[in-house]
Amino acid sequence: MNIGIIGIGRIGKIHLINCLTHFRDIQVVAAMNPSESGRNFARHLGVPLVTDDAAVLINHPEIEAVLICSATDSHADYVELAAKAGKAIFCEKPMDLSLDRVRQTLALVEGSGVPLMLAFNQRFDPSFAEVKQRIAEGELGKLRSLHLISRDPGPPPIAYIRSSGGMLMDMTIHDFDMARYQVGAEVVEVYARGAHVVSAEIQEAGDIDFASVMLTFSNGVVAFIENCRETTYGYDQRMEVFGSNGMLRVENPFKTSTISSGRAGNILGKNLDFFVDRYAESYRLELAAFFEALIAGKPMPATGYDGLKAMEIAEAAMRSIAENRPVRLG
Amino acid sequence: MNIGIIGIGRIGKIHLINCLTHFRDIQVVAAMNPSESGRNFARHLGVPLVTDDAAVLINHPEIEAVLICSATDSHADYVELAAKAGKAIFCEKPMDLSLDRVRQTLALVEGSGVPLMLAFNQRFDPSFAEVKQRIAEGELGKLRSLHLISRDPGPPPIAYIRSSGGMLMDMTIHDFDMARYQVGAEVVEVYARGAHVVSAEIQEAGDIDFASVMLTFSNGVVAFIENCRETTYGYDQRMEVFGSNGMLRVENPFKTSTISSGRAGNILGKNLDFFVDRYAESYRLELAAFFEALIAGKPMPATGYDGLKAMEIAEAAMRSIAENRPVRLG
Amino acid sequence: MNIGIIGIGRIGKIHLINCLTHFRDIQVVAAMNPSESGRNFARHLGVPLVTDDAAVLINHPEIEAVLICSATDSHADYVELAAKAGKAIFCEKPMDLSLDRVRQTLALVEGSGVPLMLAFNQRFDPSFAEVKQRIAEGELGKLRSLHLISRDPGPPPIAYIRSSGGMLMDMTIHDFDMARYQVGAEVVEVYARGAHVVSAEIQEAGDIDFASVMLTFSNGVVAFIENCRETTYGYDQRMEVFGSNGMLRVENPFKTSTISSGRAGNILGKNLDFFVDRYAESYRLELAAFFEALIAGKPMPATGYDGLKAMEIAEAAMRSIAENRPVRLG
Amino acid sequence: MNIGIIGIGRIGKIHLINCLTHFRDIQVVAAMNPSESGRNFARHLGVPLVTDDAAVLINHPEIEAVLICSATDSHADYVELAAKAGKAIFCEKPMDLSLDRVRQTLALVEGSGVPLMLAFNQRFDPSFAEVKQRIAEGELGKLRSLHLISRDPGPPPIAYIRSSGGMLMDMTIHDFDMARYQVGAEVVEVYARGAHVVSAEIQEAGDIDFASVMLTFSNGVVAFIENCRETTYGYDQRMEVFGSNGMLRVENPFKTSTISSGRAGNILGKNLDFFVDRYAESYRLELAAFFEALIAGKPMPATGYDGLKAMEIAEAAMRSIAENRPVRLG
Repeated sequence: MNIGIIGIGRIGKIHLINCLTHFRDIQVVAAMNPSESGRNFARHLGVPLVTDDAAVLINHPEIEAVLICSATDSHADYVELAAKAGKAIFCEKPMDLSLDRVRQTLALVEGSGVPLMLAFNQRFDPSFAEVKQRIAEGELGKLRSLHLISRDPGPPPIAYIRSSGGMLMDMTIHDFDMARYQVGAEVVEVYARGAHVVSAEIQEAGDIDFASVMLTFSNGVVAFIENCRETTYGYDQRMEVFGSNGMLRVENPFKTSTISSGRAGNILGKNLDFFVDRYAESYRLELAAFFEALIAGKPMPATGYDGLKAMEIAEAAMRSIAENRPVRLG
Repeated sequence: MNIGIIGIGRIGKIHLINCLTHFRDIQVVAAMNPSESGRNFARHLGVPLVTDDAAVLINHPEIEAVLICSATDSHADYVELAAKAGKAIFCEKPMDLSLDRVRQTLALVEGSGVPLMLAFNQRFDPSFAEVKQRIAEGELGKLRSLHLISRDPGPPPIAYIRSSGGMLMDMTIHDFDMARYQVGAEVVEVYARGAHVVSAEIQEAGDIDFASVMLTFSNGVVAFIENCRETTYGYDQRMEVFGSNGMLRVENPFKTSTISSGRAGNILGKNLDFFVDRYAESYRLELAAFFEALIAGKPMPATGYDGLKAMEIAEAAMRSIAENRPVRLG
Repeated sequence: MNIGIIGIGRIGKIHLINCLTHFRDIQVVAAMNPSESGRNFARHLGVPLVTDDAAVLINHPEIEAVLICSATDSHADYVELAAKAGKAIFCEKPMDLSLDRVRQTLALVEGSGVPLMLAFNQRFDPSFAEVKQRIAEGELGKLRSLHLISRDPGPPPIAYIRSSGGMLMDMTIHDFDMARYQVGAEVVEVYARGAHVVSAEIQEAGDIDFASVMLTFSNGVVAFIENCRETTYGYDQRMEVFGSNGMLRVENPFKTSTISSGRAGNILGKNLDFFVDRYAESYRLELAAFFEALIAGKPMPATGYDGLKAMEIAEAAMRSIAENRPVRLG
Repeated sequence: MNIGIIGIGRIGKIHLINCLTHFRDIQVVAAMNPSESGRNFARHLGVPLVTDDAAVLINHPEIEAVLICSATDSHADYVELAAKAGKAIFCEKPMDLSLDRVRQTLALVEGSGVPLMLAFNQRFDPSFAEVKQRIAEGELGKLRSLHLISRDPGPPPIAYIRSSGGMLMDMTIHDFDMARYQVGAEVVEVYARGAHVVSAEIQEAGDIDFASVMLTFSNGVVAFIENCRETTYGYDQRMEVFGSNGMLRVENPFKTSTISSGRAGNILGKNLDFFVDRYAESYRLELAAFFEALIAGKPMPATGYDGLKAMEIAEAAMRSIAENRPVRLG
């Protein structure tokens, strides 16, 4: 299969390397990047066609699928172009910060009939995917609750926060998707609280840096979500799912498997510094799932609809905070 | 110091044994129990005066302090008798299921000037107490959130549930106290949801068997509490406190420190079966704290007021469930 | 059953309290101690007959079994007295520091037909006992190796070391017994090395403070044993048993089940300070096993022969160190 | 810097990918492989010159360093060719199965003055390297002992075993190097035992499949090594270093950071299946260390001398098994 990659930034580079080194049957025919440095990266790795014009890539007759890894505000445009050109689409999330635009674009994609995968990479993390599979196999019986704690080592630049759509739409949205994915049902009610505990600058930018959310699902499961923009101990993302037959937890992996014992007690390794380290394997596995679904003609394992639902939960959570009351969905 | 113990049931026996074997300076002068078997237990351990009349014990001129370990509905009566007799009081929780009665009894105790400790034993568990102390020493910086998960291995008899005051007043109340204890502030708002996931019988008895609670404290800390009346894996009580400077967690202790490795993976020990196993040490330590405060003339480490506040949170949580809205306190 | 306890020191007190509080069918009729403080302890707990004369206790007509918890150099004498009096015997280890005396005493006991249990309490620790049981149930398949690491927090007083029979006879002997117990076979060869890493004083006293041992068993299993008289991190005793079907490990229990996360990483609880803390439960369980075997007329779960075999391994290890060569046994 | 890679098999592919994706300043100018499939792999990744003639690559005027990743029996030949051509050498281990040939080749390399690194990749594993660094910083004080347990999930093909030089030379040799690396001293005495616990076929091939070794170092440290060719639970490699000031352990990393709790207890993830998974990161880090030392003109972090010393220990261990006695080195 021949593919093209739009956007050779941080995540585009990861996908390009994974394509070259893990998928021998996939040919990266073309790469597009607006700036020279990304294009040089692609040239160094032997990509035949390197361009700054996405249309050239999308309309390339040999290219069957495009990976859209460019800036968020270009996602919807490129998705629409690719859909019109009849190319299969792998798009980084979010598709757009506007719910309306997402709905329009998804309608267009649906009309065109091209397959589209939205890159919710955390679903493909070996630990989270294992939990999903074991739930599906019935190991937990009937689900009762889910706990998600996601804390970043430190806040992103304030410019990023200003254009991010807010913490709930930018960060908690991953937990909303993970909760839907694991619970296998839709959220019917959201209660959320926001707080400012990290930085006055974030508050001045009109955003929160700490979120507490309680979701109720259509099947009765309650999800507790806590998000924070800062820790002193590195990247922290943990999950617990509890059911009538047992419990599954995902703990943080550590940098090393070293244990020291001394006067201070027994000290394990340190948390990872960054989500890119934590999720390195998930990037490869989500691509594998995309190619597999594409070749087998199966439904995509994470869709534009999934992205839309997570955004709707985020929006309801924002309303819940504003009005301090549980908000119904759907 | 000479003491008397009222009620030689499950918890009274624990206290009696601990008095005899760990506190060489404490003399158990008398024990009261309504039934013969409890009295025989006390006789076997050499308690000089064994009776079925609490008044005899309370008014015994040599007795300086009484431990009230009898049935819940007798607590308030014995507390009042002891207060009138000028005896120091160690009372099992709750003091009463009625908030009004608790308020009246506490007023009487306050008027009498006798010291009273309410036996919130979990505060004295070495792990939970360690966390409290490390928070007090500033290790976590400014607190941001607290997570408490308490799950019993199985529900108590339905008769117990019917007279328990309900899951929030009977079980979650320990978490309400623990949250107040660790956070060191008062709850200002409660949002709670109840569910029936364990047994139809509990639902028919008018109670819930699964509770989800979000507390907001006066200092901004948010506490997430989950309670369930049943697990397949034993007694489960865990806590996490997160602050600007780090995180402290209390995990479950296991029956053994064995790890097996085989085709099924790496298997740790099993959870304990029962809260009495988990908290064995806390019973001894709470008594030590009572005697220490008494002898030093210091404030009691857990008071009737603490019990009252926990009950008020439980009541607000019940109203929150009934009306599906956050409820303000205070 | 009526029993008497000889020696109300550290370990005698533990046994006395356990008898009173855990074995309702056992009556402690008498206690003997040479000094007043031990006798007062027994009186405080209501022991009817308190004496400084072991013969009075041993020959007391109502006493069916004696627990010998006195100083090591009196064990063999009291065992012989009790055997002659036809009393069942529970004896703290070692029976004597001289292999010859042990052999003589065991011959006398055997001739008398009284049951004798040697108090190898570590066998009854819930974790070590669990491993033994799972091995017996075949979980590990055919055993291949065993690793034992035992390190004390600090060396005992030099006077104790001088009269201890040496590190191998005093400390490593517990590992020799544990290895035999777990492997279920006899040692056929010993290779050992000794070192001085802790204290010049111990070296001057003619003892080692660090021992490295490799045992070969009759069934081919190899056991690695390391012992040290000092750590900076508390009491450390761990075991690993590896077989054709898997592995079982016993890790150290910690003081608390707290985990802290901060700039220094993820810190677990601290090791226990002292073997008495680590093995508190084993003291109760070994007594239970003694009473159970006695009442059921079953073989004792740890015998004088077990003590003898462990001493023979220790002696061979001493010869191995002296001659720097593997030494055959049996 | 321009390099060439000789041998594009399992390990050569790993190095080639790592060169392309992690070292932007390194140009892979040429790759040599005897068979077509390895050459196609290199072509697919855009290596300019692909050949089946090692001499062409080694003598290529632009190539400054060669990575020798071919079959073991060709290592010494290519090392000598490269040394004569004045190229820096990174050579997979072992350099040769014959101690004599290794000595000759090292002499030639030394005479030529080219830098040579022997690829003891486990030294560069983040956990093992962290322990080494913390020992070097004095965290453990004076070292006392080291424990190494290395167990493979299953034995290699019997043909491999026949040409491997034997378990001690093929498998335990990694532990001999690791022990020297961590202890920072030379081995002065070896005591070893061999056993047959896995497969009759291995025994018939004249090799052992289970090894027990005790090493004594010049600084008094004792190392315990256990090796086995088979487990039921995956790849198992752990280390413990104990010193006067504390202890450092390296535990196995698991496939996932999942914990399940149910009737069977609390189950952690599974061990990795294969050393290539366990040491993926170490392959990248050893290359980084090679390039860094080369560019900075510093001593190589693992030398041909290190390989020679590990082989000498293996040879002494074989003699110890044959003669059942401790064998002196040096």
